[in-house]
Amino acid sequence: MREGSQDRSLHGEEHYKKSHLGEKTIIQTIQNILGGEFRPDDVGYAATVNRTIVTNIDTLVQSTDIPPSGGLDLRRAAQKSVVACVSDFAAKGVRPKFGTISINLPDTTSLDDITDIASGLRDASNEYGIQIVAGDTNAGQEMVCTVCLFGEISSDRRRVGRGGALPGDLVFVSGPFGYTALGLEMMLDRNNHPEASETLAMQARRSVTHPVARLEFGLACVKYFSSSMDSSDGLAATLSEMAQQSGHVFEINSIPTSKQLIRYAASKGLDLKRLVFYGGEEYEIVFTVPKAHRDSMIKMAVELGAPIIEIGYVRDGTVDEKTVRKCSVYLNEPDGTGRIGLSGAGWDHFE
Amino acid sequence: MREGSQDRSLHGEEHYKKSHLGEKTIIQTIQNILGGEFRPDDVGYAATVNRTIVTNIDTLVQSTDIPPSGGLDLRRAAQKSVVACVSDFAAKGVRPKFGTISINLPDTTSLDDITDIASGLRDASNEYGIQIVAGDTNAGQEMVCTVCLFGEISSDRRRVGRGGALPGDLVFVSGPFGYTALGLEMMLDRNNHPEASETLAMQARRSVTHPVARLEFGLACVKYFSSSMDSSDGLAATLSEMAQQSGHVFEINSIPTSKQLIRYAASKGLDLKRLVFYGGEEYEIVFTVPKAHRDSMIKMAVELGAPIIEIGYVRDGTVDEKTVRKCSVYLNEPDGTGRIGLSGAGWDHFE
Repeated sequence: MREGSQDRSLHGEEHYKKSHLGEKTIIQTIQNILGGEFRPDDVGYAATVNRTIVTNIDTLVQSTDIPPSGGLDLRRAAQKSVVACVSDFAAKGVRPKFGTISINLPDTTSLDDITDIASGLRDASNEYGIQIVAGDTNAGQEMVCTVCLFGEISSDRRRVGRGGALPGDLVFVSGPFGYTALGLEMMLDRNNHPEASETLAMQARRSVTHPVARLEFGLACVKYFSSSMDSSDGLAATLSEMAQQSGHVFEINSIPTSKQLIRYAASKGLDLKRLVFYGGEEYEIVFTVPKAHRDSMIKMAVELGAPIIEIGYVRDGTVDEKTVRKCSVYLNEPDGTGRIGLSGAGWDHFE
Repeated sequence: MREGSQDRSLHGEEHYKKSHLGEKTIIQTIQNILGGEFRPDDVGYAATVNRTIVTNIDTLVQSTDIPPSGGLDLRRAAQKSVVACVSDFAAKGVRPKFGTISINLPDTTSLDDITDIASGLRDASNEYGIQIVAGDTNAGQEMVCTVCLFGEISSDRRRVGRGGALPGDLVFVSGPFGYTALGLEMMLDRNNHPEASETLAMQARRSVTHPVARLEFGLACVKYFSSSMDSSDGLAATLSEMAQQSGHVFEINSIPTSKQLIRYAASKGLDLKRLVFYGGEEYEIVFTVPKAHRDSMIKMAVELGAPIIEIGYVRDGTVDEKTVRKCSVYLNEPDGTGRIGLSGAGWDHFE
């Protein structure tokens, strides 16, 4: 008898709220059944004649991903659904060239709404040079926009995974964190932030409504990465996943954000670490670089205007699995006040 | 001012129910904005180095595609979401080799449900030899399963479109129609069909719960097709789309179904033409073949055990657009009782 059937009769429906399951459990269950060797990564690889197709699929769901209070209109939401997928390619240093899109529309959708959605898809496709080659539309209970992108690399190109960091490697992020969490907070509770400067407020809101994938930086600098991952599940979760896949410990000694945001958080009594490490929906690349490549990588980043930040280093961490799971990432607070373990429970779609 | 904004103030929200729009309007609107030359086809083509990636995306939506009365469990629904996408490849004679999958799960989903969904995806992937290389899971208001498949062909291979049929070509379908509509009817109103024979009832239900894509037939016989299309939007809609894209008239003189189904429909007073031409969700290939290829194609179909049926022919139809739109397909009733125009208003997801 399957476990679920048994439990159902014992505990009733309430026991089955998916919120009990969590994204990792769900993904692991699906992977176990689909079989094959599985190592979570930002993109999938499909070997063909002399080439490898690189692909990824990403879905934006109205009830989950669009703040109910407004602020993210349909055009921006549609654009964001493409950017989120491009960001995964950026982390792997692969250019997405083609895409397919599937859209579910509730029966309250107007032609105006459809125009907005299509315009957002066009905006992003133009921005990143992607050609949409197939699509599907469906009626549904809520707006859902699924984007599947494709690119190609030569079969012999080195693939950079989420694991692969070695002791001594340096940990970097491609830009500042914390703006998205602040932006969402401002959208949900507009009147509570009159003190935010115009610049800060604008930057925070733009990080939600106009996210940018670091594609050019990823393409140019992937050759220096020993491991890399898109940060959209949250910085702590991303670091944790990378540390676990590498089997080493990440020591973080810098909180990658701006002085402006630090000051504002302090003045408002906001938890800076929550904003920066557990916000999610930042489309930055988190990556590790061997020390020998540090200067070349930084030079390239400066040329491209990518606001990279060095945040820590990798150290030998062959510890037992339980410990690795709980604390494979440590934050040494820059003000010297302490050292805390950053657990991987960052943004989880189901919790 | 955009049309939508203007209408909104004049007619209020009620005017904006998407049911007024229809799938064609929605797709056309999106296409106009995304730009590029667009000719609707079952799959998309993306040219790469010496090869062309062939791709398609297809979404199964709980509220739209799963009968509320049960009969199609989650495992079968998930399997069907892959079969629907494979069928588009079958129509173009291209083997799908890889896939990405995105699943939305409502918060009532149990681990048991997830196991069922993954098992259905595995069943179909195994059946058609597809490797799933990337995936995404999300919380959502209803179960949504989006499947994006891709394969590859050499750049110089002839592509068979939905248009391309020439006067004198013969019209075929890869199997019988009408079972799916009958099966759905049986599922929705179980007690009203006690007279159906065991065989008929089983075949009708299986057409809903275990659809099969005609992949091997499509791969072997695409070389004979002058045009082809997957029939899942309904036979009349499929024929109409093909006739319109070819710019010719399709004369249909046979209703492709079984004697058993004809007899049953007559005994129950069911409209046979509605069941066969406007059912939808049949995963057959509708295709045209030049007379010169007829015998070779039939020989191959017999070898493969594909139950193809010749249903008519193509004749010159350079008529004005309005006429073509309304009546590009004529059904000459086999019993000699008349001749009717089959409009393209087959299965439309939004009407």
